[in-house]
Amino acid sequence: MSKKKLLVATGGGDCPGLNAVIRAIVKSADRNGEWEVYGSMEAFNGVLEDPPEIVHLDNDRVQGIHVKGGTIIKTTNKGNPLNYPIQKENGETEHIDLSDKLIERIYNMGFEAVINIGGDGSQKISKALFDKGLNIVGVPKTIDNDLSSTDLTFGFSTAVQIATDSFDKLVTTASSHNRVMILEVMGRNAGWIALHTAIAGGAELCLIPEVPFKLETIANVIESRYDEGTGFVNIVIAEGAQMDGKLVGRKEEGDENIKLGGVGNALRFALEDYGVKHDIRVAVLGHIQRGGSPIAFDRILASAFGVRAFELVRDGKYGHMVNYKNNLVSYTTLADATSSYNFVEVNNYLINTAKSIGLSFGVK
Amino acid sequence: MSKKKLLVATGGGDCPGLNAVIRAIVKSADRNGEWEVYGSMEAFNGVLEDPPEIVHLDNDRVQGIHVKGGTIIKTTNKGNPLNYPIQKENGETEHIDLSDKLIERIYNMGFEAVINIGGDGSQKISKALFDKGLNIVGVPKTIDNDLSSTDLTFGFSTAVQIATDSFDKLVTTASSHNRVMILEVMGRNAGWIALHTAIAGGAELCLIPEVPFKLETIANVIESRYDEGTGFVNIVIAEGAQMDGKLVGRKEEGDENIKLGGVGNALRFALEDYGVKHDIRVAVLGHIQRGGSPIAFDRILASAFGVRAFELVRDGKYGHMVNYKNNLVSYTTLADATSSYNFVEVNNYLINTAKSIGLSFGVK
Amino acid sequence: MSKKKLLVATGGGDCPGLNAVIRAIVKSADRNGEWEVYGSMEAFNGVLEDPPEIVHLDNDRVQGIHVKGGTIIKTTNKGNPLNYPIQKENGETEHIDLSDKLIERIYNMGFEAVINIGGDGSQKISKALFDKGLNIVGVPKTIDNDLSSTDLTFGFSTAVQIATDSFDKLVTTASSHNRVMILEVMGRNAGWIALHTAIAGGAELCLIPEVPFKLETIANVIESRYDEGTGFVNIVIAEGAQMDGKLVGRKEEGDENIKLGGVGNALRFALEDYGVKHDIRVAVLGHIQRGGSPIAFDRILASAFGVRAFELVRDGKYGHMVNYKNNLVSYTTLADATSSYNFVEVNNYLINTAKSIGLSFGVK
Amino acid sequence: MSKKKLLVATGGGDCPGLNAVIRAIVKSADRNGEWEVYGSMEAFNGVLEDPPEIVHLDNDRVQGIHVKGGTIIKTTNKGNPLNYPIQKENGETEHIDLSDKLIERIYNMGFEAVINIGGDGSQKISKALFDKGLNIVGVPKTIDNDLSSTDLTFGFSTAVQIATDSFDKLVTTASSHNRVMILEVMGRNAGWIALHTAIAGGAELCLIPEVPFKLETIANVIESRYDEGTGFVNIVIAEGAQMDGKLVGRKEEGDENIKLGGVGNALRFALEDYGVKHDIRVAVLGHIQRGGSPIAFDRILASAFGVRAFELVRDGKYGHMVNYKNNLVSYTTLADATSSYNFVEVNNYLINTAKSIGLSFGVK
Repeated sequence: MSKKKLLVATGGGDCPGLNAVIRAIVKSADRNGEWEVYGSMEAFNGVLEDPPEIVHLDNDRVQGIHVKGGTIIKTTNKGNPLNYPIQKENGETEHIDLSDKLIERIYNMGFEAVINIGGDGSQKISKALFDKGLNIVGVPKTIDNDLSSTDLTFGFSTAVQIATDSFDKLVTTASSHNRVMILEVMGRNAGWIALHTAIAGGAELCLIPEVPFKLETIANVIESRYDEGTGFVNIVIAEGAQMDGKLVGRKEEGDENIKLGGVGNALRFALEDYGVKHDIRVAVLGHIQRGGSPIAFDRILASAFGVRAFELVRDGKYGHMVNYKNNLVSYTTLADATSSYNFVEVNNYLINTAKSIGLSFGVK
Repeated sequence: MSKKKLLVATGGGDCPGLNAVIRAIVKSADRNGEWEVYGSMEAFNGVLEDPPEIVHLDNDRVQGIHVKGGTIIKTTNKGNPLNYPIQKENGETEHIDLSDKLIERIYNMGFEAVINIGGDGSQKISKALFDKGLNIVGVPKTIDNDLSSTDLTFGFSTAVQIATDSFDKLVTTASSHNRVMILEVMGRNAGWIALHTAIAGGAELCLIPEVPFKLETIANVIESRYDEGTGFVNIVIAEGAQMDGKLVGRKEEGDENIKLGGVGNALRFALEDYGVKHDIRVAVLGHIQRGGSPIAFDRILASAFGVRAFELVRDGKYGHMVNYKNNLVSYTTLADATSSYNFVEVNNYLINTAKSIGLSFGVK
Repeated sequence: MSKKKLLVATGGGDCPGLNAVIRAIVKSADRNGEWEVYGSMEAFNGVLEDPPEIVHLDNDRVQGIHVKGGTIIKTTNKGNPLNYPIQKENGETEHIDLSDKLIERIYNMGFEAVINIGGDGSQKISKALFDKGLNIVGVPKTIDNDLSSTDLTFGFSTAVQIATDSFDKLVTTASSHNRVMILEVMGRNAGWIALHTAIAGGAELCLIPEVPFKLETIANVIESRYDEGTGFVNIVIAEGAQMDGKLVGRKEEGDENIKLGGVGNALRFALEDYGVKHDIRVAVLGHIQRGGSPIAFDRILASAFGVRAFELVRDGKYGHMVNYKNNLVSYTTLADATSSYNFVEVNNYLINTAKSIGLSFGVK
Repeated sequence: MSKKKLLVATGGGDCPGLNAVIRAIVKSADRNGEWEVYGSMEAFNGVLEDPPEIVHLDNDRVQGIHVKGGTIIKTTNKGNPLNYPIQKENGETEHIDLSDKLIERIYNMGFEAVINIGGDGSQKISKALFDKGLNIVGVPKTIDNDLSSTDLTFGFSTAVQIATDSFDKLVTTASSHNRVMILEVMGRNAGWIALHTAIAGGAELCLIPEVPFKLETIANVIESRYDEGTGFVNIVIAEGAQMDGKLVGRKEEGDENIKLGGVGNALRFALEDYGVKHDIRVAVLGHIQRGGSPIAFDRILASAFGVRAFELVRDGKYGHMVNYKNNLVSYTTLADATSSYNFVEVNNYLINTAKSIGLSFGVK
């Protein structure tokens, strides 16, 4: 008897753990015996390409991939099927809705179901496709941990670990030179990576998108730290942090005034212009945070997600996304999954933890 | 006005994160302003020594210690004040109850409250002392994650990470030589470290105390793996795993029959005696698992525990232990905290995850 | 025009960096344009199998392998073509010289030259084959750094790093518990890994094969360390260390008296029997030391070796082995390469370094 | 009998291994028995301060410091005693020669000899002070490995390892997204860190100060890599790399035209302006490279340097600097030590290695 066919796609920015999800799906399907698994290359672009780029994923193909960063079926931020970029003859780019074509192709190729691994944007696509009749299940993915429907996702803990390892290194050189060290980490809208890194590393200042900081306060914290004799300061700043109410440091199209080099450098130069005389140095982790082998926790969570997602497919529970809530792997509806964000809120216990151990957020 | 005095002790086996708890208590107390913190060296032995060994813990003393393994106030497994070992003149050891003397000394030294950081044994002591009138708060500590009243404790994730890193290294040499590799990890009664490591690493076999394994099954799994052509096998075994219903490999007093060198070696020799012809190699992580810098997650959890424990003291909520439940740091009574264990149970979702990705527990 | 064919084999124990050598050979050959490269699976066994197991190695096949431990063409200790084990009908194993058959097959398959990557045993085979007329070049490989004709080989520095990382972890738990920690590392005949690890970690005792130690001295060093108040001791012991003139702890065939579990456990029990009362714990790294991704230094050295080995083939300089001497990658004759060993000698500057920073070798 | 007093100072940028040198000096002196060791805080500034900042360094003080980055006696780039910055009353800074005062103070405080740990600048100071009569011995220190009188110095290998670990992480995300990744590493004048990292990581492009690169060539290498189907490119660039003959990306005083954010960002924007359409991302390691625990090799080399430096003092061999040449720790005169630099030269065997494995330097 021929097996049922399952299609897997990974969308949005890559994340340590994606391969562990894929492997768990393939191994679960293999053990189940009734399904075989395929991957669409570069999110759903693989389906929409002519000819389609679809690869068979069997046990041999996924052997050992759970220890590797990235995704073996590649990913992209450019390819929303609801708003697909098409190059026109005159060179311009037009965006059109290819969702019907996508669903049609998926079914025509013989697929019974789809597992879509991706962040908020990807799961909104999942929901739209489900509403249009596609048998789809979601697996959450966000390096920033900004999805409200799951306590944690894979990749986030790895990013925090990488940032913390880097922070630890900066501390020794900061203290030897009596310097101010700025570590710029990811987090455009949610400051979880910065918050966790600042607590884990033991920073003096943590600057996150949710809490606009004041340059004057930063300068004061720095000076008081030198005055009390400690003689060095470590700052963790999220890339989306806002200084005196403005976003700084990111290069936006059409905005020539924004300094190049990111928010970390912007803060350095602002502090120097403000009159801080101490040496200031900046490190920008960039994509180092989202690469490399996932830490054990993320491999386990990703494996559990993959297994659970396959079970949802096996049981025909489409329109859902797996999640991790209250120390359990479970699932929720795609509708719920995409209804709100998970920002750092003032009453979060980690904010209290942070303040109690002397961390400042740069507010007044 | 003089400050209130708080005593901190760490008991039982050491654990990455202990120093982060201590630092968080000291920093919280400093920020609060009404308390000052002291440490009893080697659990409560520091109080019972003549003269007592008590050290002052201020901000300077705890600077940067959260990144270090171990505990700056030392710890011991030998010194239960309810059953204290006293060397008699004839050389024999007598055990007597020194709890009244302990409490009296603590109050006589001017301490208003105690935070006791330790595992199940330590918290049973906390409860007994609380019942006798001591103002005490507990912080859970267990490398094995075997406390039922908290979803996770610090140190466990670090141990899993260290074991997983070692596992990853064994895989490359196993596959190059077509060998069977046995990695022995901690876990006398609870197999959580082994289970997490086996999933994270991608082992073929995971042998834990809760699930007695059969030698024959292990041999069969090994042979079938070679038959199918993969040509190497990776086994994670907890030190308390039972083979064919018997504990093996640990050196117990008076038991000359038990092989030296641990359960990993015992399994190796049993397999060789059974007739397995493939090369088998053993690595015994031992205390490497509980040493070194805590990973970021454990530093954060330990910091949150320390802050919360101080708040319980500040608010006079004695007789409680902090915990981590449902993604929140909270607290429970010491009575509840010590009423049951957290073993790996058959219906745990990780067991399902493990089986689904092809992991065998060695049961027929 | 058809390309010349080059055969590569890896023999003996695996070693981090083998894949980097293979990749460098393949990339060099590709850039040169006149050669194509093949691999014999499991040392020369791949040639001698019926049918032979030979794989084509091109740029695609070696992409990214330099970061991986092990060897993609597998290796073995069993398959010396000069003394090849043949299973007879009666079940016994006979050893016969297959070197003529090996050379004949290599040439019959169209290979013009061979690069043999391996340790002392492998290079003795290289020399014998060269003397019989095979166009062969050697690349040295030894995790123990026991080859006298090269200052360093790849893999050794990775092993030292892994052992040192483990040592660092043991220190924190040793100091928290006032314990004696024994770390058993590789080194059957040469103590380089132990010596480097002991210096890098800051051990109190370093026990190596070249310097037989006295149990009494070990016990005295331990006691004096506790007497002076430091309260913990860290010992690095090579697997081939000799106690009071005897090899201990390795399981040899026919010797029932030797304790199981290795020299580390043997030392522990000997110290306990001797009367040392302090807690003693043992960690046995085993093959963890030779697995995993090579450190940067080993990847670079291995790459340089691979490039140089190909150049020797290209230039027809057969009968040589590449080496690393005086900070340069060069080469020597196979005859010189296999004439003597590199043991730790008393006048080595690292012995002086070790003693000057307080390390004892357990003599006198 | 009172002991002879030895003063130690660390100057210039910090470097993993400085503490291991200090510890080895102190331990050697302790074992020798005739010397005691002191440290001058922040290079020689500690001597010149009023009152002087001098700390006693005994065995307790240096216990375990060899595993820590930085320097416990701090360091600075600002405090050349031959050209010492003095703040004048009108706010301006004047530079005057305080070398006579420095030597006088050192002798007046009772010091018999000085060990100066530092780079080229520091050793030029050592030589000048020696010429003026100070009993001084040098220990080389350079993260960039740009000293010609020693094959290697401590810290460099750690920096390469950190950069390589980061590179490895970038590869997985680059390949998942088909991106161009630029990793900016240290190296203002010498490209050794970049060269080693590029070989160890397996980069496609390596841009170093010694080999001015052409933007057009970079763009061509990128395009050809995409054309051949690999779809991602990894670039290592040293901070002092020159594009089309000009230094880019560093903020120099008085030069408003140079883009902020470093050479990595400058290259990115230049490539985008040139017309490269692929996604380009930048990571700037900054001081992460010179922080953290030294790898085993650097701890060992630093320990050997410290021991040898003390021996030179003990033997009265002033005016020399220890070094590492031809796999041995030895010494040279300060005059020789400061006479030339160690740049990457075209005929270095690593350049050949790099080219042979397909690395481009962006020339032609």
